[in-house]
Amino acid sequence: MHWGVLLAGGSGTRFWPLSSPSRPKQLLPLAGSRSSAEEAVDRLAGFIPPERILVVTGAALAPPLQAALPVPHANYLIEPRAASTGPALVWATVEALRRDPDAGVISMHADWAIRDPSAFVATAATALDTAARHARLVTVGMVPSRPETGFGYIVPGEPLDGAARSVARFIEKPDAARALDLMADGALWNSGLFAWRAQDLLREVRLHTPEIATGLPALEAGDPIAFFEGVRAVSIDVGVFERSEAIAVVPGDFPWDDIGTWEALARVRPRDRRGNVVHGAVTLVECSDCIVWNDGPPLVLSGVRDLVVVHANQRTLVLDRARAPHLKHTLDALPEGVRDLE
Amino acid sequence: MHWGVLLAGGSGTRFWPLSSPSRPKQLLPLAGSRSSAEEAVDRLAGFIPPERILVVTGAALAPPLQAALPVPHANYLIEPRAASTGPALVWATVEALRRDPDAGVISMHADWAIRDPSAFVATAATALDTAARHARLVTVGMVPSRPETGFGYIVPGEPLDGAARSVARFIEKPDAARALDLMADGALWNSGLFAWRAQDLLREVRLHTPEIATGLPALEAGDPIAFFEGVRAVSIDVGVFERSEAIAVVPGDFPWDDIGTWEALARVRPRDRRGNVVHGAVTLVECSDCIVWNDGPPLVLSGVRDLVVVHANQRTLVLDRARAPHLKHTLDALPEGVRDLE
Repeated sequence: MHWGVLLAGGSGTRFWPLSSPSRPKQLLPLAGSRSSAEEAVDRLAGFIPPERILVVTGAALAPPLQAALPVPHANYLIEPRAASTGPALVWATVEALRRDPDAGVISMHADWAIRDPSAFVATAATALDTAARHARLVTVGMVPSRPETGFGYIVPGEPLDGAARSVARFIEKPDAARALDLMADGALWNSGLFAWRAQDLLREVRLHTPEIATGLPALEAGDPIAFFEGVRAVSIDVGVFERSEAIAVVPGDFPWDDIGTWEALARVRPRDRRGNVVHGAVTLVECSDCIVWNDGPPLVLSGVRDLVVVHANQRTLVLDRARAPHLKHTLDALPEGVRDLE
Repeated sequence: MHWGVLLAGGSGTRFWPLSSPSRPKQLLPLAGSRSSAEEAVDRLAGFIPPERILVVTGAALAPPLQAALPVPHANYLIEPRAASTGPALVWATVEALRRDPDAGVISMHADWAIRDPSAFVATAATALDTAARHARLVTVGMVPSRPETGFGYIVPGEPLDGAARSVARFIEKPDAARALDLMADGALWNSGLFAWRAQDLLREVRLHTPEIATGLPALEAGDPIAFFEGVRAVSIDVGVFERSEAIAVVPGDFPWDDIGTWEALARVRPRDRRGNVVHGAVTLVECSDCIVWNDGPPLVLSGVRDLVVVHANQRTLVLDRARAPHLKHTLDALPEGVRDLE
């Protein structure tokens, strides 16, 4: 059967001051009226029920996620420490295998905005089918909508069947000129949407990923604490996909956004005719290309452009929009008492 | 004896959302740690005691002014309606005359920032002395510190005695080129700091200002309500100074600011080395030439310039600094529920 794995960790400083340790971006209604974690579970409905969704997260986030999602509490895998995506996905895959010897796994992040749920499900089904048919690990490569420099890219190789291809190579985050070339050459964004049969992932980890494989006996003995003590932090991309031969790529051609920065709101939310995106009690007077989020009393902008303005969690931020991708630089400059949120 | 008249009316929308009908700018600590109304009374201490200061204001503002100032309640003149500076100053002058047949009056606005109180008092004394010696109405012309286009100018005429001169003419608010010429030619700002003997003002009003003179019998009969019913709104400049021959000008050479807009805070408050002026819990990260007032929880600005940002009275304003003189344009565009403060 098919199992969904939702990666829902993350400290959530990119949407400061709206996001906070107890309410990171996957629990915020950034793209619409519901949080991206809720939308992720909804999106799978009819394909994978909540009973077959495993949620990997940290101790602090488990309670708010459990309050928000219809996933059984027994399906939460609480990481004792953050160790990147490799150990998290191996743990979830072993758990799926424990419950279902024939488990096929599709893994995703809880903080994505996806506007076409049926196209998503069709692509996920293709990825799982490709994985099963070829006994390969499948990554879904998103068809780029812009020459984004914040993502890695996948260059597809020879055809397997249908839309599936082997992977010629993975490209690190490119500069702007290279991103344009990659887009023109048909390269795809490395999104983090993966599919595999549980047994195939474990086989490849044993072959290629000693950082994780050394912990497998503990995990198979039912001791995830010992597993995390035994593994090293490594991403599934670096630790497995970039080392394995048994991989494939399936294209994903639907609106996908990882809502990485405040800038993303201008992509995933409606804009007015002057390019502004607003949420909450906001009045704009002759403003353009502003992104405004207000959880508080009335906020007025007049005669300004290219700003990100946020009032939330007893903080107000007024940011040059060009700095949105580098918000960490601003946060690093703040006194703790200003920066730290509950 | 000398009497001070403090004009303390005004609806206070220029410092929205900090200023409000119940707390207009003269009650705000805009220039320092105390309000400009308090500073006005302090500034006269030793020269004119609070017992000889008359405060002209409206019904709504009398209680907060009475709470803030050491002036006896019997010295408050509550206007039944706003009718510009002419009727207000005539009423206060008649009241001073009623209490003191030899009254000399110095009148000022409650919303000024003046950084050199002893120079102010010396100038006020000179103005009162000039008024008494020549039986003229005296206006103090401020030595300009910039080619301001928001004020009227006074061109001095022939010398009287000391620094006192007659007035050659009054100039309406000039354009920028003319303001430069006026400043170079030794013209002075028409500030609104006036001095006269009570009997001289009433004489000139009877000669030149029928809009007010028709109400004088009611006022002398002790009926200010009937006075305001009988007069027409007219400024003391237009109604008296621009019509009378018995006038003089004395230069005022001390830092004077009428704190007319948010822009003024950059003149009356200390700036950091990047030209920013801040009040309250504000953190700036690589910002320049911003004016920030925050009465609320932490406010962070990053990578922005030439903004006015204000959080007060349950409102937040982010304004292009070039628009500060035209804040009314922004307020006119706001829904009542956003604009109106208590």
